[in-house]
Amino acid sequence: MADEKAEAQQSRSLPSTPRPLRDVANWDMEADVVVVGLGAAGGSAAIEAARAGADVLILERAAAGGGTTADSGGLIYFGGGTPVQKACGFDDTPEEMCKHLMQASAGANEEKIRLYCEQSIEHFEWFVGLGFEFKESFYPHKAPVQETDDGLIYSGNEAAFPFSENARPAPRGHKPKTEGDAGGLIMQKIIAGVNQAGARTVANALCVTLVTAEDGRVVGVVARIDEEEKLVRANRGVVLAAGGFIKNKEMLAKHAPQLLQSNYPLGTDGDDGRGILMGMGAGGSAIHMGEGFLSVPFYPPSDHVKGILVNEQGQRFINEDAYHGRSGDYVVNHQRGVAYLIVDDELYGPTLAFHKIVAVEETIEALERAVGFPESTLTTTVEFFNRHAVNGEDPLFHKAAKYLRPLSAPPYSALNLSVGKSIIPAFTLGGLETLPTGEALTPDGEIVPGLYAAGRTTAGLPHSASGYASGLSIADGSFFGRQAGRSAARAKAW
Amino acid sequence: MADEKAEAQQSRSLPSTPRPLRDVANWDMEADVVVVGLGAAGGSAAIEAARAGADVLILERAAAGGGTTADSGGLIYFGGGTPVQKACGFDDTPEEMCKHLMQASAGANEEKIRLYCEQSIEHFEWFVGLGFEFKESFYPHKAPVQETDDGLIYSGNEAAFPFSENARPAPRGHKPKTEGDAGGLIMQKIIAGVNQAGARTVANALCVTLVTAEDGRVVGVVARIDEEEKLVRANRGVVLAAGGFIKNKEMLAKHAPQLLQSNYPLGTDGDDGRGILMGMGAGGSAIHMGEGFLSVPFYPPSDHVKGILVNEQGQRFINEDAYHGRSGDYVVNHQRGVAYLIVDDELYGPTLAFHKIVAVEETIEALERAVGFPESTLTTTVEFFNRHAVNGEDPLFHKAAKYLRPLSAPPYSALNLSVGKSIIPAFTLGGLETLPTGEALTPDGEIVPGLYAAGRTTAGLPHSASGYASGLSIADGSFFGRQAGRSAARAKAW
Repeated sequence: MADEKAEAQQSRSLPSTPRPLRDVANWDMEADVVVVGLGAAGGSAAIEAARAGADVLILERAAAGGGTTADSGGLIYFGGGTPVQKACGFDDTPEEMCKHLMQASAGANEEKIRLYCEQSIEHFEWFVGLGFEFKESFYPHKAPVQETDDGLIYSGNEAAFPFSENARPAPRGHKPKTEGDAGGLIMQKIIAGVNQAGARTVANALCVTLVTAEDGRVVGVVARIDEEEKLVRANRGVVLAAGGFIKNKEMLAKHAPQLLQSNYPLGTDGDDGRGILMGMGAGGSAIHMGEGFLSVPFYPPSDHVKGILVNEQGQRFINEDAYHGRSGDYVVNHQRGVAYLIVDDELYGPTLAFHKIVAVEETIEALERAVGFPESTLTTTVEFFNRHAVNGEDPLFHKAAKYLRPLSAPPYSALNLSVGKSIIPAFTLGGLETLPTGEALTPDGEIVPGLYAAGRTTAGLPHSASGYASGLSIADGSFFGRQAGRSAARAKAW
Repeated sequence: MADEKAEAQQSRSLPSTPRPLRDVANWDMEADVVVVGLGAAGGSAAIEAARAGADVLILERAAAGGGTTADSGGLIYFGGGTPVQKACGFDDTPEEMCKHLMQASAGANEEKIRLYCEQSIEHFEWFVGLGFEFKESFYPHKAPVQETDDGLIYSGNEAAFPFSENARPAPRGHKPKTEGDAGGLIMQKIIAGVNQAGARTVANALCVTLVTAEDGRVVGVVARIDEEEKLVRANRGVVLAAGGFIKNKEMLAKHAPQLLQSNYPLGTDGDDGRGILMGMGAGGSAIHMGEGFLSVPFYPPSDHVKGILVNEQGQRFINEDAYHGRSGDYVVNHQRGVAYLIVDDELYGPTLAFHKIVAVEETIEALERAVGFPESTLTTTVEFFNRHAVNGEDPLFHKAAKYLRPLSAPPYSALNLSVGKSIIPAFTLGGLETLPTGEALTPDGEIVPGLYAAGRTTAGLPHSASGYASGLSIADGSFFGRQAGRSAARAKAW
C-alpha cells in the first residue's frame, strides 16, 4: 500500500506533494546548496552561496539561464545616494528612499524594505563588482525604460502625487550601460558571475517537487533531466528561485483573477507557479497572492502625460504622470476596465502598445459624440481641466505642473486604453513568505528547515501595481537572492 | 530527537503543523465524523452526517454553538421559485438565479453555483423540515435586513445595474419569521436539529491542529478541552467549519489587507483563521484569500438611495441603488476610501451607522464650499444628475428610475462615508478550496483524504464584496455544510 502510494506520487510528480526521504533509495546528484532556477534571483543566490564556500548546483528548466529578467527592460531600483544619482545631481538618502518605499510598497515586509534601503548602495557596488557599468547620465523623459544608454531614470511614482508629497523625489531606476533593454546584458553578466564563482549549472532540468525528511526539513529536490527522474540531495538547503505564476491560468483564477485580463504576460514558460507550489507542499506559506503588476502603457511619447485619462463617464480619475503600472491598476481594477487617453494635435504620437485611435475630431464636443460619452461629460471635464491647467494647477488630481497645459490644439484624439482593446502587460507579485534572510515560513510563521526562496517565487519588495516602480523586481530578486544564498551556505548540513 | 520535536509541537500546537499519527499513543475520544465548529455550516454538516447514520462529534470552541450566523441578520439566499417567492408574485427560476450568480459571484466555483441554484428549493424545504417558518410577504424597502417579520427582500444587486440587464430580477433574501434579526433564531433551530439527529457536541473545545497518517490522510483532531489536550479520532473524516479570519490581523495583512480598514469585523472570536490554517497544514489549499465582504451601510432609510454618492472630486462613481456591499467596495477599494452621500431635506434621515453630517447648506454651491470640494465640481455633478433625473434617467450609472428624482429641496446635507469616519463592517471570503462535495483539495487539485470543509473556512458561493448579497454566506455554509457532512459520513473508515 505504501509502495503503491509512492509509485503513484512518483509518476505524477505533483509539485505540492513532497517526496518523503524514506522513499529515496539513492541520490543521483548532490550539493551543499541546490538552487532552483537561474534568473536574477537564482543567479545571485548561487554566486553568494559559492563565494561563501558552498558547493552549489543550479537546476534550470530552460535550455539556458536567463529567466524573466533576460526579457526585461533591465532597470534595477537602487537609491540612497548611488554614485550615478550623485553624478546626475540628485540628492537621495536611505531615509528618503525608505519613506518612499514604505508608502509605495505598503503591505510588503517592512524589515525587507528597511534592509534594502540601508544596503542599496552596497548592492549597487556588488553589481559593479560583477563588471556592470552604469553611465552617469539622467534620462529626463517618461518611459518604461530609456531607449538610450543613460544610466538613470524616474522609473516609478517618486515625482508624482501623492508620493511626491511624502518623500523627496529622486530617480532610482538604474540601467546597465547599453541602448534600450538591458535585461539580456544583466543575465549575461550574472551567469558569468555564477560560473566564475564555481557554481555548477544543469540546464533542461525541471524540478518537480521537494524531498522532505520526517521532521519536515527540506533535504533535496526531485528533478526531471533528460526525461529521467533524478534525485538531488541538498546538504544545506534548497533555494527556490523559479519565478512567479503569470503563465498558470488556473492559479491566476484562484489567486489573482484580475490578472487574467492581461493579454501580455511578462514571464517565461517557467512562470507557471511550480516553485511556489513546491514550497507550499513542503509547508511554506504563500501570501499576497492576489497582488500583481499590470500596466496600460500609454507613454512614451512623454507628451501623452500632458493629455488626460478619462473613464467611461468622461471623468478623469488619476494624475496622468503616475507610473504606468499605477494608472494601469486604476484603469483595469478601479474603472471597470474602460479608459481613454484624450490628447490634442501637439501631444499625439503613436504608443509602444499601438493604441487604437477611436476618433479624431476638430472640437471636444464632436469627440464626445464620436466616442459616445454622455452629452456634456467630456466637454465639462476638459473645460475644467483647461481652466486650471493654464495656471499650472490640477485641483482634482495634482498632476505635476510640468505636465499641465490646456488641450487646445485641434484636432483632438481619443485613444482606447480599455481592457480588450489595449496591450496589458502583467506579472504576479504574490508568493512564498520569507524572512529577509531568505528562509521560508509556514502559515504559522515558523521557519521551514532547509527551505529558502527569492525573486517572484516570494512576496518581496514590490507589493502592488499601484505602488510599483520598474527595477523593483530585479533589485528584490538579486538582493534577497544573495541573502538566501548566503543563509543556505551557512546552514548546518543534515 | 524525534521525541523532542514531537514534544515541541505538542506544547506549541501550531495549527498548520499536523500531529503525525505515529505520535498518538491513544485516543481520548472517537467518532465517525468530527465537525470543528457549530455555526450554520458545522450544524448543517452534523445533521446530515448523523442522519446518514454516522456517529458525529462536534467540537465547538465557544461556550455554546452559534458562530457568526447567530449574530447576523439571518437572511438566507434561496431562489429558483420558492413558495415564498411565488406567494409574493415573483417569477424566479433556477436558470435566472444561476445567470445572476454567475455574474455576481464570477470567480467562484461554477459547479457549486450551478448545484446550489438547482437545489435551492430543496434546501429551502430542508429548512422548513427543521421547523423554520417563512412569512409569505415581501418587504419593499432597501435595508440590509428587514425590521419586520416579512419573509422576502431584495438582499443583493438583482434589481440594480448592470445585474438587472443580465438576469430577470427576483428577490432572494429569505428571513425566518421573526421581527428584525433572525440569526439567533436560525442557530437555535439548527442546534435543535443537531441534537435531534443525535450528534454529540462538546463545547469549550478548541481544536488546535489535525492528526495525519503517513500517507497524508486526516485521521483526527487535537483539541484543548478543560485546559487539557485531547486526541480525537475521526474514523471517516473531519469537517472544518470554523469560520473565516476577520479576527486575525496578521492573516489579514498577509492576505486581505484592504479589510484592515474595517472597524467593525463581523465574526466571533473564533474567526481567527485557525480552521483555514489547520487545513493548509494538512495539505489543503487556501484560495481567493484576498476577497472579503465590506460595506458602507448608508441605507436605511431607503430614501438615501435617491441621494448621490460622490468621491473626493465631487464625482459620482456608482448607481446608488447597488447593494451596500457593492457601493462599500467602490468607496473603500476604488475611490481611495473617500466618499460622501449628498441628500436634500426630503431624503435625509439618520442611518444605522450614524454617519456624520459634514455640512448642511441652503444651496449646492454652499455645500460644495463647506465640504471643500474643488470649485464647480459638486455643482456640475448635481446639475447634470438633476437634469436627467427629472426624466427618470441616469446616463452615467443607470440607477433604476424609481430612485431617480432631482435634488431640489433645501437644505442639502453631506454625510461622510469615508474610511475612518464611517462604520465599515467586514468579513473574509477566502478559504480552503473544496469540491461541491465538501472534500478539501491540495494546491495541485488533489483530494486531501479525510478532510472536508464548509462555510467561511472555505471559498464558497459568495466571491466578492462587489457581487455579494445578504444571505449568501448562510446559504453557502448550510448547503455545502450538508454536502460535507454527507460525504464524510459515507467515506470509508480508515
